[in-house]
Amino acid sequence: MNLMQGSLLMALASAVLLWPQTVSAQVTNSSPVTAEAVLQIPKVDYRKQWVQIGSVSSLAEKSDEGSKQIDTTYIERENLERYLRDGKFPDGTVLVKELLVTKTEQLTTGKISYAAGDVIGRFVLVKDSEGKLGSGPRFGDGWGWAFYKGNETTKTVTGDFKVDCVGCHQAARGDDMVHVRLYPLLKR
Amino acid sequence: MNLMQGSLLMALASAVLLWPQTVSAQVTNSSPVTAEAVLQIPKVDYRKQWVQIGSVSSLAEKSDEGSKQIDTTYIERENLERYLRDGKFPDGTVLVKELLVTKTEQLTTGKISYAAGDVIGRFVLVKDSEGKLGSGPRFGDGWGWAFYKGNETTKTVTGDFKVDCVGCHQAARGDDMVHVRLYPLLKR
Repeated sequence: MNLMQGSLLMALASAVLLWPQTVSAQVTNSSPVTAEAVLQIPKVDYRKQWVQIGSVSSLAEKSDEGSKQIDTTYIERENLERYLRDGKFPDGTVLVKELLVTKTEQLTTGKISYAAGDVIGRFVLVKDSEGKLGSGPRFGDGWGWAFYKGNETTKTVTGDFKVDCVGCHQAARGDDMVHVRLYPLLKR
Repeated sequence: MNLMQGSLLMALASAVLLWPQTVSAQVTNSSPVTAEAVLQIPKVDYRKQWVQIGSVSSLAEKSDEGSKQIDTTYIERENLERYLRDGKFPDGTVLVKELLVTKTEQLTTGKISYAAGDVIGRFVLVKDSEGKLGSGPRFGDGWGWAFYKGNETTKTVTGDFKVDCVGCHQAARGDDMVHVRLYPLLKR
């Protein structure tokens, strides 16, 4: 490999590394494949039966349009209690993060944005510290990783988690890859 | 009463009527008094044990500062199920709405805001269609009404609900005074 090829490879590697954060925000885009069962959207009615640990509002490109998206994250209550007690997520913990389309209204009190019902997509993270729940490109760094577009529950567009997920989660490596600061209910 | 006094009274009445929407946003400001027990902040850990029905993000005055506040509303699961089945809140239903201080961060993917932990205040609404749960200035229009600043749980700053609350809830009179459109989980 000559110097020019080396530089090109470096540039390419940087582009791949930056891609999830700079281009795609929070949506991975590999070809849809049926995910491992453990990574699929939970069959229970988690919106009513689990605990919502926090909501994150994303500002629109034109900021005076308000929030373009609200994300909400759910966990089973027992796993939350164990996290609060032990400081770590027990194996098998499932986190579901929904990306929700918003509506924005101008009220006399100011501009508000709220989830209008449609789901952009959903992330699933499954804690697997010992690598016993799965293997392959969607497992690693102590978790299983999958993203589903819209209301899809089984066919994921996550290929290799290192390409599709780690870009955004790298900054949270010190907190077991989870952005705990975003979630008031994870405060210990 | 002469014409001038009449006009003055009308202007005053309008000012009082508009006050909750134009000046105070979502915080009532009467002198603190101990609220009726049924209106006090629930003693259970509703953040983990109840269902969160939705989050509302309020844009900062300078819109490029992101969201200044995120509000989240909780209901007991059984009362939510009955609302979804019957289309009305059963008597005794408690809604708790928290107003949360946000932090805003510029990420490479855009600007996000999230609840940073501090509570600006909390609203409590208690369904009382037959007026059996309480009486006086904090009861009427089918509900009991109270607001608590910060982490206060018993001393409310709500005086007369018609002055302190109805301004913002008037627009939802057709939905039993609740802004159901803000809450995806109330969709029937």
